Amino acid sequence: MFEELKSIVEQTLDEVLPKAQVRPSVLSEAMRYAVGSGGKRVRPLICLASAIAAGGKSEDAKFAAAAIEILHNYTLVHDDLPAMDNDVERRGNPTVWKKYGEANAILVGDALQALAYAVAAKSPVNPGRIIAELGVAGLGVVQGQVEDIAATKDVDFIYTHKTADLFVAAAVMGALAANASGADTERLRSFALNLGLAFQYEDDLLDCDSPYGRDKTAQLAAECTSAAIAALEGLPGDTSFLRTLASRLLGREV
Amino acid sequence: MFEELKSIVEQTLDEVLPKAQVRPSVLSEAMRYAVGSGGKRVRPLICLASAIAAGGKSEDAKFAAAAIEILHNYTLVHDDLPAMDNDVERRGNPTVWKKYGEANAILVGDALQALAYAVAAKSPVNPGRIIAELGVAGLGVVQGQVEDIAATKDVDFIYTHKTADLFVAAAVMGALAANASGADTERLRSFALNLGLAFQYEDDLLDCDSPYGRDKTAQLAAECTSAAIAALEGLPGDTSFLRTLASRLLGREV
Repeated sequence: MFEELKSIVEQTLDEVLPKAQVRPSVLSEAMRYAVGSGGKRVRPLICLASAIAAGGKSEDAKFAAAAIEILHNYTLVHDDLPAMDNDVERRGNPTVWKKYGEANAILVGDALQALAYAVAAKSPVNPGRIIAELGVAGLGVVQGQVEDIAATKDVDFIYTHKTADLFVAAAVMGALAANASGADTERLRSFALNLGLAFQYEDDLLDCDSPYGRDKTAQLAAECTSAAIAALEGLPGDTSFLRTLASRLLGREV
Repeated sequence: MFEELKSIVEQTLDEVLPKAQVRPSVLSEAMRYAVGSGGKRVRPLICLASAIAAGGKSEDAKFAAAAIEILHNYTLVHDDLPAMDNDVERRGNPTVWKKYGEANAILVGDALQALAYAVAAKSPVNPGRIIAELGVAGLGVVQGQVEDIAATKDVDFIYTHKTADLFVAAAVMGALAANASGADTERLRSFALNLGLAFQYEDDLLDCDSPYGRDKTAQLAAECTSAAIAALEGLPGDTSFLRTLASRLLGREV
């Protein structure tokens, strides 16, 4: 069943990304290269699974899901730039700037961000609110990144914005696409915020690089995981996909 | 009366741009610096005047107008980057990257693009269609820019996308915000496309740098200007603002 959700994501991405005949061809080729086809697609899966948990159908949220994945990938393209992290490889392949040049990589990221909003606008239900949510996350992820390259860093602020904001937008956009009630939308928002933070803490533990120290980080990860799962209580739809996603993401049963 | 439209633009920009207390403060400060306060605001004025020409009120289109100006300014921030045009000065001041560093300038542009869509989503009427139009233009302007830095250039393609797309989006978003009919929306689209091209040809003449040669460019500018004015025929609202804008922009009576 996860395979079915994954294939909705891949099909929708293929449908909305520019075809080779869209000019200039280097742009459409590089946009597809940047989004790839083999990623884990965590954020769009959260989006589709949130629509289901809200009592809707996964198809309802397919444009919202594609939009959040495209937005996420634009941030990676820009993060890799020489003026930022100066990374030459991602997922075992040359980064976009390494393959297409720095100017093109800036523009490919810009084009992907524009496309993300254009795709979100295709949502048949609540397009305005879905885009408002995507815009807040799109701004938030940059706020987190600017804080991350600043001289003095607020770790909580970076984690909330750089990591969790896109998880939150994914879940809330899925809820809005399924026309969820306000209360259910907030349940999914709380789930995703806590999942995003737990994911970041687990990541720190795996990297053996925890600003809060190992024990405290493990405790925070456990607390956020519990809070995420507790937030699912009361949703009208099937929450098993979100639970499975969370358990895969966090490498533990939840 | 133009002053009134201009003050709607400035007030809305001030309302939607992040306040100094939005963190990190360097980001909110740099976003305001990038958008400035003294520009000609051509695109948002086209947007408000199009709402009026479609029979609506300028206030209807204030968020669409602010959105197109913010989008335009993000493209300038990225165009000025060292990897692009490497410009150190704009409107007599240091460019964003020169003042805040290259990484911050990439992020400021990214944040402004996100904000543009978030602001457009505030439009009370037709938010989904307004954002779809902004997304097409946001993608188009990048298509034009990628073509512009390519080895072989198609001048018509660059002019249509790099220059005219934002004019078109401004007019169409204004029309949609005023809930214009399909026919009136197309009239305004045609007006703006021709105005954008005429503006570009006039610019070439002023710079004494016309890919088509001086005589042919002057002829194209005149033809596009006439076509722009002719397109206004049949609109239900007051078209005098659009005519005045066009005549100011093109430095001639129209």
